Amino acid sequence: MKISCSQEDFYSAINIVSKAVATRSTVSIAECILITAYGDEIKLTANNNELGIETIMAGNIEEEGMIAIDAKIFAEIIRSLPSSNIVMTTNEKYSVNIVCDQSEFNIMGRPGDDFSFLPDLNQENAVEIPQLALKDIIRQTIFSTDETKPVMRGEQFVIDGNTFQVESIDGYRFSIRKITLNDDYGDKKAIVPAKTLNELTKILRDDMDEFVQIVFSNNHMVFLFDTTTVVTRLIEGEFPDINRMMMADYETKFTVSKKKMTDSLRRASLLSREGDKKPIALNIKDDVLHIDLKTHVGTMDEDIDIKKEGKNLKIGFNPGYLLDVFNVVDDEEVDIYMGSSRYPCYINNAEKTYNYMILPVNI
Amino acid sequence: MKISCSQEDFYSAINIVSKAVATRSTVSIAECILITAYGDEIKLTANNNELGIETIMAGNIEEEGMIAIDAKIFAEIIRSLPSSNIVMTTNEKYSVNIVCDQSEFNIMGRPGDDFSFLPDLNQENAVEIPQLALKDIIRQTIFSTDETKPVMRGEQFVIDGNTFQVESIDGYRFSIRKITLNDDYGDKKAIVPAKTLNELTKILRDDMDEFVQIVFSNNHMVFLFDTTTVVTRLIEGEFPDINRMMMADYETKFTVSKKKMTDSLRRASLLSREGDKKPIALNIKDDVLHIDLKTHVGTMDEDIDIKKEGKNLKIGFNPGYLLDVFNVVDDEEVDIYMGSSRYPCYINNAEKTYNYMILPVNI
Repeated sequence: MKISCSQEDFYSAINIVSKAVATRSTVSIAECILITAYGDEIKLTANNNELGIETIMAGNIEEEGMIAIDAKIFAEIIRSLPSSNIVMTTNEKYSVNIVCDQSEFNIMGRPGDDFSFLPDLNQENAVEIPQLALKDIIRQTIFSTDETKPVMRGEQFVIDGNTFQVESIDGYRFSIRKITLNDDYGDKKAIVPAKTLNELTKILRDDMDEFVQIVFSNNHMVFLFDTTTVVTRLIEGEFPDINRMMMADYETKFTVSKKKMTDSLRRASLLSREGDKKPIALNIKDDVLHIDLKTHVGTMDEDIDIKKEGKNLKIGFNPGYLLDVFNVVDDEEVDIYMGSSRYPCYINNAEKTYNYMILPVNI
Repeated sequence: MKISCSQEDFYSAINIVSKAVATRSTVSIAECILITAYGDEIKLTANNNELGIETIMAGNIEEEGMIAIDAKIFAEIIRSLPSSNIVMTTNEKYSVNIVCDQSEFNIMGRPGDDFSFLPDLNQENAVEIPQLALKDIIRQTIFSTDETKPVMRGEQFVIDGNTFQVESIDGYRFSIRKITLNDDYGDKKAIVPAKTLNELTKILRDDMDEFVQIVFSNNHMVFLFDTTTVVTRLIEGEFPDINRMMMADYETKFTVSKKKMTDSLRRASLLSREGDKKPIALNIKDDVLHIDLKTHVGTMDEDIDIKKEGKNLKIGFNPGYLLDVFNVVDDEEVDIYMGSSRYPCYINNAEKTYNYMILPVNI
């Protein structure tokens, strides 16, 4: 194999597929990046068997071929080279020669034969959404995934006509984000591993004009964007029925500044983190929210101005759970709905494009 | 005690003295910050017995007093408060009440009686240099300190009339930086712990117009700048006589671009770090420096254009040692002097404001 391309393109392609390289794998080929150069396509692939990524890179093929190279040292070498043209040549003994300006590296590669290629899936009927929109709705929900049950290790993607909803749940709360699509895509459902989604958000672009195609398949989901293909295994099992946990009615509603509430919760988490995991008490009384917390480290007391409807209420929460929500909502003023000190609390907007539920704690 | 001050001033003062707070100390008072408020001076002090820092903070004293507070939680609380006025009150039970806008914290403090105050040293005849100059010369020499021998754990500060020289040495190299002072300060010498100097560079300002006063005392050195006093213990013992290791003559001299050499050495350190600690070979031949390295990971070969005087030479080095020097020299073109493949190599400028020596390695 002999290929040439710019250092920038090479490093950027390695960086994308690196997200699917296995770390400390028992199968050491899974720690490699596979480079294939056939026809006019230079393709880089990494696959840890849960997540696989391939990307096509601009460049010239002088001689076709295939090679697998240890991802870590390869990424470091390519990154360290000057911003110039790179020529990479391999020989029949799988030695890899990399030349860039006056620098030359030789490292050992491996035949690519035992590399697990990505499954070749039907890519029809893909759901199309902007890259930034997908990135945002993952970020705004992923914190309420949980390692305790397999289905909670992922997020459920639900397509219902022209709406796309992302749901996550753990034993104490759920998070939902919903967006409207440009087309109608029928009914689809799948549970996508949170690990995959975390890596995906690192390579999606912050761009509302560039799209990602999402393909729902039997055991896999495929994300297609730019010249990159991401294939992930799905999580099998039945996702908890979130519709049965929706708010029926409320006794207390208040509106609070996102900034003021976030700042207070951050301060509360200081004492809570340092000390025992004590809940914070929210005392909603007329137009003031009084927050207090006592741990063995010390006490905190705060007043925040709010707009309240309904009854006064005293209720306890894990401050970290409230903070997770307030960290990610986009509105400057946020509505919170409560039933009693034993009923779940809901944080959502009128259109329900976001809807968070948190169970209270005894105080 | 009752004091008030701005959140910014309070946090900045805590941040300065925090550098001298003990971590995981057996004496838990050393993990505290002492606040004293007497007359019109609010002073914060931390002291881990090797290094002590005190700083005076702007603010109002409503009631005089003294309190010691656990540094970690105290710093986090003050940092988390809004950018507003803070009122801090303590009572006879050493409870500390902190109020800022609508936030209120209560934490437990301790009496300051068992706190080790900084020694009261004579501050006459201080050497004066710009804060940024001190910061720079420490950064440019501190990497060649060493834990193996007590005197190598520090840097020697040498005052000789109107020159100030900083020296560090380990078993394989030395580093020297020299600057000219505005006044004549006679002869002084002291070995200052590298740990102290590392912390000091974090709180000195990047400013050539603000000065630091350095006081040489018997067992201590004092640094005075802004409203801050840093007191460090000195290291006892005889520093190696660096003058006996100076270059007598050279057989080979070459001039190389700092950028090109630094980039090459960084690439070399990739293979060297991943693999065994193999030396790089420098092959100086006419106007080309050929660098090569073979480790079990792979090989690297590079050519760099140089300007050479004297004999051709092949010589080996630990690439990290050369990189340490090239990372910090300010010149764009750097001169390197060598004797033979068994003689030390010197990197310095004509004025000898910097002078680095590195021993070669067999190849």
